[in-house]
Amino acid sequence: MSKDFSWDSAAEIAQAVASGQASAAAVVDDALARIGKLNPQLNAFTAVTADRARAKAKAIDASPDKKALPLAGVPFAVKNLFDVSGLPTVAGSKINRTHPAATQDQPLIARLEAAGAVLVGALNMGEYAYDFTGENVHDGPSRNPHDLTRMTGGSSGGSGSAVGGGLVQIALGSDTNGSIRVPSSLCGIFGLKPTYGRLTRARSFPFVASLDHLGPFARSARDLALAYDVMQGPDAEDPVCAQRAAEPTLPLLERGLDGLRIATAGGYFRKGASPEALEALDRIAKAAGARAEIEIPEAARARAAAYVITTVEGAALHIGRLRKQGNDFDPAVRDRFIAGAMVPGTLVVQAQKFRRWYREQVLKLFERYDAILVPATPCTAPKLGQVNFTLDGVDMPVRANMGLYTQPISFIGLPVATVPVPLSPLPIGVQVIAAPWREDVALRIAHALERMGAATAPRPNL
Amino acid sequence: MSKDFSWDSAAEIAQAVASGQASAAAVVDDALARIGKLNPQLNAFTAVTADRARAKAKAIDASPDKKALPLAGVPFAVKNLFDVSGLPTVAGSKINRTHPAATQDQPLIARLEAAGAVLVGALNMGEYAYDFTGENVHDGPSRNPHDLTRMTGGSSGGSGSAVGGGLVQIALGSDTNGSIRVPSSLCGIFGLKPTYGRLTRARSFPFVASLDHLGPFARSARDLALAYDVMQGPDAEDPVCAQRAAEPTLPLLERGLDGLRIATAGGYFRKGASPEALEALDRIAKAAGARAEIEIPEAARARAAAYVITTVEGAALHIGRLRKQGNDFDPAVRDRFIAGAMVPGTLVVQAQKFRRWYREQVLKLFERYDAILVPATPCTAPKLGQVNFTLDGVDMPVRANMGLYTQPISFIGLPVATVPVPLSPLPIGVQVIAAPWREDVALRIAHALERMGAATAPRPNL
Repeated sequence: MSKDFSWDSAAEIAQAVASGQASAAAVVDDALARIGKLNPQLNAFTAVTADRARAKAKAIDASPDKKALPLAGVPFAVKNLFDVSGLPTVAGSKINRTHPAATQDQPLIARLEAAGAVLVGALNMGEYAYDFTGENVHDGPSRNPHDLTRMTGGSSGGSGSAVGGGLVQIALGSDTNGSIRVPSSLCGIFGLKPTYGRLTRARSFPFVASLDHLGPFARSARDLALAYDVMQGPDAEDPVCAQRAAEPTLPLLERGLDGLRIATAGGYFRKGASPEALEALDRIAKAAGARAEIEIPEAARARAAAYVITTVEGAALHIGRLRKQGNDFDPAVRDRFIAGAMVPGTLVVQAQKFRRWYREQVLKLFERYDAILVPATPCTAPKLGQVNFTLDGVDMPVRANMGLYTQPISFIGLPVATVPVPLSPLPIGVQVIAAPWREDVALRIAHALERMGAATAPRPNL
Repeated sequence: MSKDFSWDSAAEIAQAVASGQASAAAVVDDALARIGKLNPQLNAFTAVTADRARAKAKAIDASPDKKALPLAGVPFAVKNLFDVSGLPTVAGSKINRTHPAATQDQPLIARLEAAGAVLVGALNMGEYAYDFTGENVHDGPSRNPHDLTRMTGGSSGGSGSAVGGGLVQIALGSDTNGSIRVPSSLCGIFGLKPTYGRLTRARSFPFVASLDHLGPFARSARDLALAYDVMQGPDAEDPVCAQRAAEPTLPLLERGLDGLRIATAGGYFRKGASPEALEALDRIAKAAGARAEIEIPEAARARAAAYVITTVEGAALHIGRLRKQGNDFDPAVRDRFIAGAMVPGTLVVQAQKFRRWYREQVLKLFERYDAILVPATPCTAPKLGQVNFTLDGVDMPVRANMGLYTQPISFIGLPVATVPVPLSPLPIGVQVIAAPWREDVALRIAHALERMGAATAPRPNL
């Protein structure tokens, strides 16, 4: 019987493959077998690129340079809004299925593969990324590996399910208002939403250009940093990402918490939180030595402004399809876009003006603190199909409100590492928010918390 | 009888005052007398700051440093949307008259005064700068010095009238879609709309933050450069203008046309032009040695996009006043703002996206050419009260359409010097458009054209 690599870390696999203790072919075969066995339950993958993966693994095994590959033989998969050569970029939609196949991989895929990682497939997601649940009327919902009757969170639901369920060591997703951080929280894994503009978005299907980020998921902070580091660097194809040189974080991880000033945020960021969310935050805050509770000003307004920009930019992107192919949308997504198409422009202008003000106010907080801790989601994973939940005593739609604590942060592009707290029966995440371009700080803290045992990705019974 | 300085240049006055040949007090008294005599006809001024001006002139005459002042004793005035200490900043409106008086001058006033210039008053303008005519229901229209029955153009109508009529050597105005260039053209004077972000807009009443520019008017290219140079430089109070160091243009003026590649733009920029506009363009093109006629791509769409952004950003700025004080607006202005408040946000998003594309396309033209010549206005000054004119064979409203050739240029913030061609009976202007931050090129060309006699500010019979 072949070895089971599912719960090995990316770092361990890369070392084993690089040193010849294991073959990339065996690792990839094991991953493909596990996907074959568990995906019918998890519904994380919408396409498996088995032939490509086996060919790539074979090439790594034959390569004289494999010792130098930091991700040699590590299986990974991407949310299906990344271009994958040979596949149409469906972005969770029915409409895009008729698009021609991509002729080139999204550059972050190419960078991971250049580091030795092996793409094994494309992952389920909420339609056009306008989602916090991980449900999809065309492909069915991705399922939470810790409880198959529950949501993964979205929109990068397949990414959360695949990493949380041990199908891959690393997945890529996108985060506009929380679509990496919400599934990280609900699936009990680590996720990184980098600074806006850090990782190239060329050849990915957009949602809200001024808010979209791409980023990785993993089951350890080190794996997250490993993947993130090889993906960094400018790309002329993405104007927003054309300038910034790579700033490797891996060498900094061992520095621990020394010298970092860490705070929690109260007020808005505690209101509406379930007991589990508060318990997770308190555990993480204690382990991190957070001594102050600060207030992020006007967070509720920031979330409202993020919604205005999201719905209007999203509607502007999709308005042609809404006119011609309205019936091919998920009705819930379509209606949100149609609503967006009717929002007056004055609100957009006011939201953008507010955004500049809010960004200035929040940046001032980082003069006094290196990181701010807040919950990632107000609660653990809701049941699949659950329409409402109680937020601050009020019955509210789940789909729109899981981003309560993530939207005010991505709105101004701050980098965030989400760390998992293994509560029973379900995990929940905490956001570690850093100043712009200081992913290193967020990842250092995530790694320190993991070493202390405060943040760990729980292993599901599958 | 005292000397008449009205038709002396700013450079001549400064030299006379600096050398002691004339006193600043005499120059200012002469200007105030001329304003007193001619303003009842021209209606250029809405406030005359006589006491302040006399005190300032006296201080200059007494100053041991006056020899070093490049604008010693030069009278100037500003559009009434600039803060002037002690006056409410009315911005052409009735509503703002109840605002408290400004406690500080707009920084460009301070910079001109530091160079020895003397503020003599505030100038008439179209309400809230949403205007191309120079008409104002509250203050009455500013009148064209070359024909008092005709428009100055707007919205900086008083600026055009005051400089064209010889009341001041220099005036400041603002240009969002053409509000410096249109009155320059109709009043037969030089005007500079600098690169977006070049001159600080702090303490001025805004219209469309992403399109607003401030800039000078004068009766010679040298005076324009003189005023512009002393106003340049960063200002922490205007975030858009926080970085750029001053790049003096005056020392470059004598370089003439040597080495400059100059083109005219055809297509859109000839369509709708009156015979006068084409004659002026052809004269200027010939004198400048323009050899190629190029096409600025999608200029009509650029103008449409400029309109969308203008009307929506304008409406966002005024929406509170529209709700509470709708009846205090000029009805024509109010209705344009109300229309703007109903434009869907998706159009704004699409206009902004187009703007990025269009900017890239137009910037490519500046790899092959240093300057592009196009008409400033489609025709010479219309009659006051004239509602329609014929544009490309179609009857169109004057008020909205005088910016036909200016809007596609300011939309992407390019610097433009408008030069006057003294046709009979009425002058008309030509835009000299340069690449971003190359005001020096536009001013060099304007100066060379003036030296050749192709562009001159005609002296009216007043």
